[in-house]
Amino acid sequence: MTIQFQKDLVNINDLSNEHIEYLFKVADKMKATIENKEKGVLCEGKILATLFYEPSTRTRFSFESAMHRLGGSVIGFSSTEGTSVSKGETLADTIRTIANYVDIIAIRHPNEGSARVASLYSKVPVINAGDGGHQHPTQTLLDLYSIQLRKHQLKGLNVLLSGDLRFGRTTHSLSIALARFGANLFFASPPGLEMPDYIIHTLKEEYNLTPGIANDIREYIHVSDVIYMTRVQRERLGEMEYLQYRGSYVLTNELLKSAKPDAMILHPLPRVDEISKEVDDDPRALYFEQAYNGVPMRMALIATLLGVEK
Amino acid sequence: MTIQFQKDLVNINDLSNEHIEYLFKVADKMKATIENKEKGVLCEGKILATLFYEPSTRTRFSFESAMHRLGGSVIGFSSTEGTSVSKGETLADTIRTIANYVDIIAIRHPNEGSARVASLYSKVPVINAGDGGHQHPTQTLLDLYSIQLRKHQLKGLNVLLSGDLRFGRTTHSLSIALARFGANLFFASPPGLEMPDYIIHTLKEEYNLTPGIANDIREYIHVSDVIYMTRVQRERLGEMEYLQYRGSYVLTNELLKSAKPDAMILHPLPRVDEISKEVDDDPRALYFEQAYNGVPMRMALIATLLGVEK
Amino acid sequence: MTIQFQKDLVNINDLSNEHIEYLFKVADKMKATIENKEKGVLCEGKILATLFYEPSTRTRFSFESAMHRLGGSVIGFSSTEGTSVSKGETLADTIRTIANYVDIIAIRHPNEGSARVASLYSKVPVINAGDGGHQHPTQTLLDLYSIQLRKHQLKGLNVLLSGDLRFGRTTHSLSIALARFGANLFFASPPGLEMPDYIIHTLKEEYNLTPGIANDIREYIHVSDVIYMTRVQRERLGEMEYLQYRGSYVLTNELLKSAKPDAMILHPLPRVDEISKEVDDDPRALYFEQAYNGVPMRMALIATLLGVEK
Repeated sequence: MTIQFQKDLVNINDLSNEHIEYLFKVADKMKATIENKEKGVLCEGKILATLFYEPSTRTRFSFESAMHRLGGSVIGFSSTEGTSVSKGETLADTIRTIANYVDIIAIRHPNEGSARVASLYSKVPVINAGDGGHQHPTQTLLDLYSIQLRKHQLKGLNVLLSGDLRFGRTTHSLSIALARFGANLFFASPPGLEMPDYIIHTLKEEYNLTPGIANDIREYIHVSDVIYMTRVQRERLGEMEYLQYRGSYVLTNELLKSAKPDAMILHPLPRVDEISKEVDDDPRALYFEQAYNGVPMRMALIATLLGVEK
Repeated sequence: MTIQFQKDLVNINDLSNEHIEYLFKVADKMKATIENKEKGVLCEGKILATLFYEPSTRTRFSFESAMHRLGGSVIGFSSTEGTSVSKGETLADTIRTIANYVDIIAIRHPNEGSARVASLYSKVPVINAGDGGHQHPTQTLLDLYSIQLRKHQLKGLNVLLSGDLRFGRTTHSLSIALARFGANLFFASPPGLEMPDYIIHTLKEEYNLTPGIANDIREYIHVSDVIYMTRVQRERLGEMEYLQYRGSYVLTNELLKSAKPDAMILHPLPRVDEISKEVDDDPRALYFEQAYNGVPMRMALIATLLGVEK
Repeated sequence: MTIQFQKDLVNINDLSNEHIEYLFKVADKMKATIENKEKGVLCEGKILATLFYEPSTRTRFSFESAMHRLGGSVIGFSSTEGTSVSKGETLADTIRTIANYVDIIAIRHPNEGSARVASLYSKVPVINAGDGGHQHPTQTLLDLYSIQLRKHQLKGLNVLLSGDLRFGRTTHSLSIALARFGANLFFASPPGLEMPDYIIHTLKEEYNLTPGIANDIREYIHVSDVIYMTRVQRERLGEMEYLQYRGSYVLTNELLKSAKPDAMILHPLPRVDEISKEVDDDPRALYFEQAYNGVPMRMALIATLLGVEK
């Protein structure tokens, strides 16, 4: 297949549906190499820089595992502790320098737009590993891939997103991406933490999609093929509201009695208490498998951007 | 040789004497590959996670060196700085996630029992790299291996453990392990820092071993085949006691005049001043060699738990 | 070519001109392997320890990239956070221990002389990656190499060093090294930040070189083949002096009108504002290329000290 990728992945919209479907196929191959315990060779001699200006152990580990599984090497930092950031250098200069040392960069930065800046100044591919609340496109890719793997298509699926949809901003790009693939959306969140209007507006205007909206997860759980849970930070709600709405966005075995027998429960992790531990033993609980899928998906992305994927 | 290992190494008692003797033989082979400067290939394509929730440079480096010498890769963290620990995730969830990214885990954690928890939730092997004061089984393994290498057997050896035997808890599992192999034990410690009664009791009841006990290293130094020094933290004793007992647990060339000519001086390191620098030139001073032995022993353990050792 | 290197590189004066010219040739070969995207194999099975007792992301990354490009592995720390330094161990003991785990060590330490101490206690080669303001010999090597690559010889070149020449101490060893190769030197610095007398004295007495000295970069810019910029820390000057001298040591396109068309602009990085961003687009701006050259030069050094370079 001949399909042209941009140099970088900063925003999920840098990828067309065709790009994403192509990555699904490459990730399938990567997954097979992991499971066959084959030693990766595609990235032998290549170096990934993981520049994590704010901590994110699981995302960093997932990228680093992906690069090692491809046979490549990794250099990086996991917080600005132990870096020269304090010496007053601009991000542009840091990136221009580090791009001389490596073949590809994954950057996590607290400031929105920083990954775009990095991509502009880097001569090697840059992958956005999260820039503030703005974008986290590899999370979106692995979410989509996890659904695709189990359901074999995204079109027509009923996907329920639950929790803090206002500040839990990875749900924003996931919603848009799911809409692009023709999924149906349902949003359940406590009052005050609803999906922002501009997302609702975009879904309607651009994808002709009117999502179902509720303040209680129970309203749509029985029709959902995918139940995507996110955290509600207690401090976002008053104590009264927290106690009042607790039951409507904490997933329990009791609640799951009304869910479809083949529903998928996903969560970007880390979870705090929005999924009861008892749910972990339910075969529909697929959030750790979802984390696992991040490795082959990131392998696919790295290999594709480096042009070593055959 | 066909011998079955458990998935994990959490407690030195997870290993029988036969297991330990098997690891000695594998470590011998690993040591030869290092010394022949052969490039390791047994763990090519495998990834070790070093999860160090508290700092321990030498233990972490020893594990990482071992994995690299086997041809494998490493991802990890060296303190909770730069991790997502603050996000409120349980250890169980962290481990279940990371087990998706790697083939084997080494964990160091300040809380007793945490390595056992990790082993229960991990689908890949877990090695305890120290959990609080509880257990540090790879230190015990490398201590035993260091003695074995020089003395060729543990049975019947006179081993003197000196220093803070109360809080220096790696001496506890070492004592039990040495008793299992039939060594004779001598304990020298300042008053108040003696080996706990339950260890003395276990040695008597389970191994029919009555250790020699003294407050002065000089009492047993002349009969010892192995002199195992540990640190006495000044703050554990009053200033008067510290000055009074200083001479009885600081190893000097003067003191070593009464030691056997083929005695081995060991120390888990780091040492502060319990071994005078002048002793470093004594051919019996083997504590840096002991640190070196940690690499082939950990190579043996990693390769064996991964099932790649032939 | 048969040329004998010392075990370690602590001070640039550990290397003769012949050693340095030999490293230029090896670096050329390394540069070719990078640019041909060949997988390095010279250091397969070898381990580098990067012991960074103070942060320096770019130097650490450059060393780690070099070792990975050679096919080797890296273990290390990037600050004393997450290490056992607090346990009171001496540097000598730390080095003696770590030398058991690796094949070569790069050390960065805030205290002058610490790299020499490390070299004395290490059984494996030690490279000084900066010890306080004292020495940073690999920076000097890459500076020389960057000039050599473009100008093909150092003898007879006019090199202007500008900025804080008093506290910016990497300029000291660079000046001596350039004098050793027969370059002509010009120093431009604000009053109070001039090159120390003992350097001027050494240049005259040992190399019969009388550098041109000015308080304004404009005095010598037109005759310079190399313009080596360093940072002036605002706090080193009073506010009045800062404003007064600003224009004389901030490189701008306006200033560069008087520079030679084939001049090279270098900077050890990070830069703050002593080179205007507008200059980055000038083809004479070679400071990012200079950073790039650090990788092949450090590859050459590591491979040579390990004796694996053919």
